[in-house]
Amino acid sequence: MKIGIDLGGTNIAVGLVDNDNKIIAKKSTPTLSHRPIGEIIDDMANVCELLVRENGMSMDDVESVGIGCPGTIDHANGTVVYSNNIRMENVRLCEQLQKRLGKPVGIENDANAAALGEYAVNGEGEDSFVFITLGTGVGGGVIINGKLYRGFNGAGGELGHIIINTEGEEQCTCGNKGCWEAYASVTALIRQTKAAMQKHSDSMMNEWARSNNEVSGRTAFECAKKGDKAAQEVVDTYIRYVGAGLISVLNIFQPKLILIGGGISKEGEYLLKPLREYVYAGDYNKYMPKTEIKAASLFNDAGIIGAALGAGEQND
Amino acid sequence: MKIGIDLGGTNIAVGLVDNDNKIIAKKSTPTLSHRPIGEIIDDMANVCELLVRENGMSMDDVESVGIGCPGTIDHANGTVVYSNNIRMENVRLCEQLQKRLGKPVGIENDANAAALGEYAVNGEGEDSFVFITLGTGVGGGVIINGKLYRGFNGAGGELGHIIINTEGEEQCTCGNKGCWEAYASVTALIRQTKAAMQKHSDSMMNEWARSNNEVSGRTAFECAKKGDKAAQEVVDTYIRYVGAGLISVLNIFQPKLILIGGGISKEGEYLLKPLREYVYAGDYNKYMPKTEIKAASLFNDAGIIGAALGAGEQND
Repeated sequence: MKIGIDLGGTNIAVGLVDNDNKIIAKKSTPTLSHRPIGEIIDDMANVCELLVRENGMSMDDVESVGIGCPGTIDHANGTVVYSNNIRMENVRLCEQLQKRLGKPVGIENDANAAALGEYAVNGEGEDSFVFITLGTGVGGGVIINGKLYRGFNGAGGELGHIIINTEGEEQCTCGNKGCWEAYASVTALIRQTKAAMQKHSDSMMNEWARSNNEVSGRTAFECAKKGDKAAQEVVDTYIRYVGAGLISVLNIFQPKLILIGGGISKEGEYLLKPLREYVYAGDYNKYMPKTEIKAASLFNDAGIIGAALGAGEQND
Repeated sequence: MKIGIDLGGTNIAVGLVDNDNKIIAKKSTPTLSHRPIGEIIDDMANVCELLVRENGMSMDDVESVGIGCPGTIDHANGTVVYSNNIRMENVRLCEQLQKRLGKPVGIENDANAAALGEYAVNGEGEDSFVFITLGTGVGGGVIINGKLYRGFNGAGGELGHIIINTEGEEQCTCGNKGCWEAYASVTALIRQTKAAMQKHSDSMMNEWARSNNEVSGRTAFECAKKGDKAAQEVVDTYIRYVGAGLISVLNIFQPKLILIGGGISKEGEYLLKPLREYVYAGDYNKYMPKTEIKAASLFNDAGIIGAALGAGEQND
């Protein structure tokens, strides 16, 4: 039995993960990210202990604990080098949690953890695998020869920050312009939807937003399905933006499988069918077998499972 | 002793490569790429035999023969799946050359071969290494854990076809718009130089072109060094285009070392210094050690050395 902790900006989600990579129980508590990190670590430990006890076990039944954490992670040393989301700079998170729990603790960047989780459950043991998550940002992870690719300094696999639009004006949170994330995240989709709503005051999207009391990643998709032209334009453009980055991923990696995760992947084939068409047309590879592109299935569980697995990989 | 063959659109260049990855002798003959492939293979074999003999050896002294070839290569089966440069479709090039020479023959995509060559000589055994060549096109190769990364179908590492400008209008030879190659190749630089020459008839570049009887990749660089403003603008823009793709490569791979090859890399620090500044500023990694970015050194020899080495890797 392993424990996986998805340390997010909003919630600390903890899961008991068995040897078949299945979550047998989960528990979470609010992160309250602005308090001192010591308190957050205390809560992480408390939730772990509580979860174990509630399931009729003790920490003796737990092999290791893994954390998935946003930011720049020094996986080898178990340190959060920098995290903006939960304010941390050079925090020895593993060491501190290990002191509390008496178990080996590993840490992994959250997107990498999600990639490990999806790979373990849906990657079918492929040698080359890429996971992309379209959410608040665009994250991802790359598995090569069954192992997470991290680069020489552990900071590799930042797929959201490939440049898809050198001459574009969209500002990314990282400081650059033209990043994939600035065009293909759900945040970007919402911005694109709002711009189209303003331009087309007669679009169904305006009504949808009023009756749902929000503009979300679903607004344009829902209205496009009902035949709204302006919404369809938003969807088409968004698919081209997602596709541009995917073409780069394809031409670089030609992985056996790409899984698309994040909330927007719930659109299923409505997103994936035109996306595949666009991406395969732009694939430089015209003669060899094609990369499969599918929806991920684990959503938030991917991060927990991957964190648990990442802990075991600590010294790789 | 190994033989490496760089099968180019213009020349068949053959080298004897020793166990220290040094070329001890070279010989070449025109490819005459439009004749039947059988004749080209005959010439490849003839040059190999002649080169060996001229150096006081026989084919018995040769361990293996490797080919670097443009196009889509099925490395595992020794087949040229498709090459546009030298017209080939499903040609079993290795088998045919093996029949003539009686030695194991391997084949590798030419950009991958160059990457293997630069890695062997200048890669310092790094775990992660990327080679980029800025020439007629933009080519590249990625070495992970000391081995060429090929993807599941052998078609990976097409770095020239990452999309840097989704909304850009530049047509790439691959059929897409916005590829890195369409902006950062020497072909693109020449097009950018010509456009600036037309716009600025008083630019020194026009005079340079008249007295050199051509517009080349050097035109803008030479004139910029002499203080020509329009030329400096061309160089600055070109560096941003090269940099955009490099930022993507960095954020994906965070390799220990990136080497830049191709004719334009002869500009040395005049190209590399501003390029590094631009790329490091766009690097998502702000906290961990930085990737080194240097000029490659082998030029055309990289392809020969890498082809020779690639042959040995045939069954990997």
